[in-house]
Amino acid sequence: MEFDLIARYFQAPFAPLWQQHGQRWPEGLNNDCAALQLQPDERLWTSTDTLVEGVHWFAGHSPQDIGWKALASNVSDLMACGAQPVGFVLAMTLPTRISSSAQHEFLAAFSAGLLACAQHYQCPLVGGDTTSACAHAPGLVLTLTVFGVAPQGHNGFARHAAAVGEGIWVSGLPGLARLGLLCAAWENAAQQAAPLPTAWAHHVPFLQALPATVRAAALLALHRPQPPVALGLALRGVAHAALDLSDGLAGDLRHIAQGSQCQLVLEEQAILGLWRQAYPDWVDGLAVSDQERLLECSLVGGDDYQLCWTQADASAPLLLADKHLPVSRIGRVQAGQGLVVQDSGGLVPVPYASYQHFAG
Amino acid sequence: MEFDLIARYFQAPFAPLWQQHGQRWPEGLNNDCAALQLQPDERLWTSTDTLVEGVHWFAGHSPQDIGWKALASNVSDLMACGAQPVGFVLAMTLPTRISSSAQHEFLAAFSAGLLACAQHYQCPLVGGDTTSACAHAPGLVLTLTVFGVAPQGHNGFARHAAAVGEGIWVSGLPGLARLGLLCAAWENAAQQAAPLPTAWAHHVPFLQALPATVRAAALLALHRPQPPVALGLALRGVAHAALDLSDGLAGDLRHIAQGSQCQLVLEEQAILGLWRQAYPDWVDGLAVSDQERLLECSLVGGDDYQLCWTQADASAPLLLADKHLPVSRIGRVQAGQGLVVQDSGGLVPVPYASYQHFAG
Repeated sequence: MEFDLIARYFQAPFAPLWQQHGQRWPEGLNNDCAALQLQPDERLWTSTDTLVEGVHWFAGHSPQDIGWKALASNVSDLMACGAQPVGFVLAMTLPTRISSSAQHEFLAAFSAGLLACAQHYQCPLVGGDTTSACAHAPGLVLTLTVFGVAPQGHNGFARHAAAVGEGIWVSGLPGLARLGLLCAAWENAAQQAAPLPTAWAHHVPFLQALPATVRAAALLALHRPQPPVALGLALRGVAHAALDLSDGLAGDLRHIAQGSQCQLVLEEQAILGLWRQAYPDWVDGLAVSDQERLLECSLVGGDDYQLCWTQADASAPLLLADKHLPVSRIGRVQAGQGLVVQDSGGLVPVPYASYQHFAG
Repeated sequence: MEFDLIARYFQAPFAPLWQQHGQRWPEGLNNDCAALQLQPDERLWTSTDTLVEGVHWFAGHSPQDIGWKALASNVSDLMACGAQPVGFVLAMTLPTRISSSAQHEFLAAFSAGLLACAQHYQCPLVGGDTTSACAHAPGLVLTLTVFGVAPQGHNGFARHAAAVGEGIWVSGLPGLARLGLLCAAWENAAQQAAPLPTAWAHHVPFLQALPATVRAAALLALHRPQPPVALGLALRGVAHAALDLSDGLAGDLRHIAQGSQCQLVLEEQAILGLWRQAYPDWVDGLAVSDQERLLECSLVGGDDYQLCWTQADASAPLLLADKHLPVSRIGRVQAGQGLVVQDSGGLVPVPYASYQHFAG
């Protein structure tokens, strides 16, 4: 069974992509082990992540999206180290309670989504393992381990490397995926696929009034995240501390503040400015309470897989000059500790606790 | 929670081992990604495997043994490529239904067993991911991805590389782990921890008469397998086709026969000779039917994690001269196809179907 599944849904579809990268993976997929050929001046970077049905997605979720996101969320970790993805291995635990035909249907769609993401990042599947779980097992469990390369002289971006006086930068629009999660939860509730958490009910009028373009972009950000790997490479030698946004600005930046023993100040107007820049007419027409809703999304939303980093302001013009890399300065590093938001009244602690209801 | 668990049970205990190998892993454990420094003439080999509670072990199993075996079974794949293990990453999915104190107790013992194996192979933990599964989740799911190195000139041992005229060799005593499984199942049944499969009942008188030394060695082979990595390295340039025995001689050698388009002949007396060599007095005193039981263990038993390979007979004296490497010739490669056993009556197809009851 294992051999058949792998051959049908993984070896055959991924073969062309693998062949394009045959110089890096000289022994092919015919072995229990994959062999990676590095260049002499390269260092290997690797990241592993597990995704579990019922935790990272729910039954009924699009298998294509699960496949895309499983790889994209792992690629994101490499991006945050400034490493170029070169391949990945996949370990799947399939519940035996799923019928054979349902399993094949799932795998066909899942591997298509996975392949689309692999092609996007030119990152072939190079090995794996399929396990059939016992009958009382849960949903699917997926573990991906992704390999990337960077020059030997590049040491990644450490969480403890932020320094007083630097700016805090982000790529893309952090919080858009959170807005997508609200949309998806509301739509699932409308179709009764999953109940809307009670604490989210107050978002419904806002979601009902959401323009179709914003809704579509938000769902895309949630289901098909595209960590900007090229930006991670461009930031080698420029960024100091860096990470990928998977737990929201408030959740992730705490690690940099702690690790670097300094205070991180996020500017409320700069964050709102990201939304305004993306959707000027819509955002300007929103009530203040709805603008605060967007700010909440940016601060506590997860699943963005965008880059957030600190750098000296002097190196900023270089980045801004490249129009293919949408990056924005949203704060600064100063003496002190913890993470604070600068609003019109001054510096306030990030009101993280008040957003706990977002956790559903 | 994740950070605490990792720090307590994985970062702290593994720190000394990691520091010993700091030149290979220059960035430490402080990042979502691990950075591996290869030498210019090295190639990276990697293998991934998932272990699931209820499939690979049962509730009540020793967590130390689970930890040891999780790493050893992955190291085994690298061994079968002739690669030297240099580190691994661990992804754990912990069921939330387990109480916090039970979880801590499990993790303390599990990480101790994992560390013991990591020290045995000088193979540090260099990264990982911890996921809490949803409440209705099954047992634990573990995925390890292990990294190894080999010189650029070494291409691993392909399954299709066996050639007519070569000998078939094994390390250790394949089937001993299967005997251990029978012992463990019988003892679990006696303690009512798990029922003995009905089809296994006929083994009980044999198991009752088993000498204590054989029983202890069999349980050790099952719970603490030690894939002979040094042998894998010694076989570079000597072995042609090779694999690690995880599904029994009959299960694993079929892949070599298929891949190499030739017939593999296993010599019944040579396999029995392995048991006789290890336990001469006991085996000589056994009834013929019990000797056949041992042969069954060798042919269809899994979990040995020993090496099986083919090589030209001319290179054999070199290996046999090293007393630290217990290796034996148990068959030959000839023109034809499939896997057969040579008994006193001639060549017979491996009676694989008759052993299906072993699957329990």
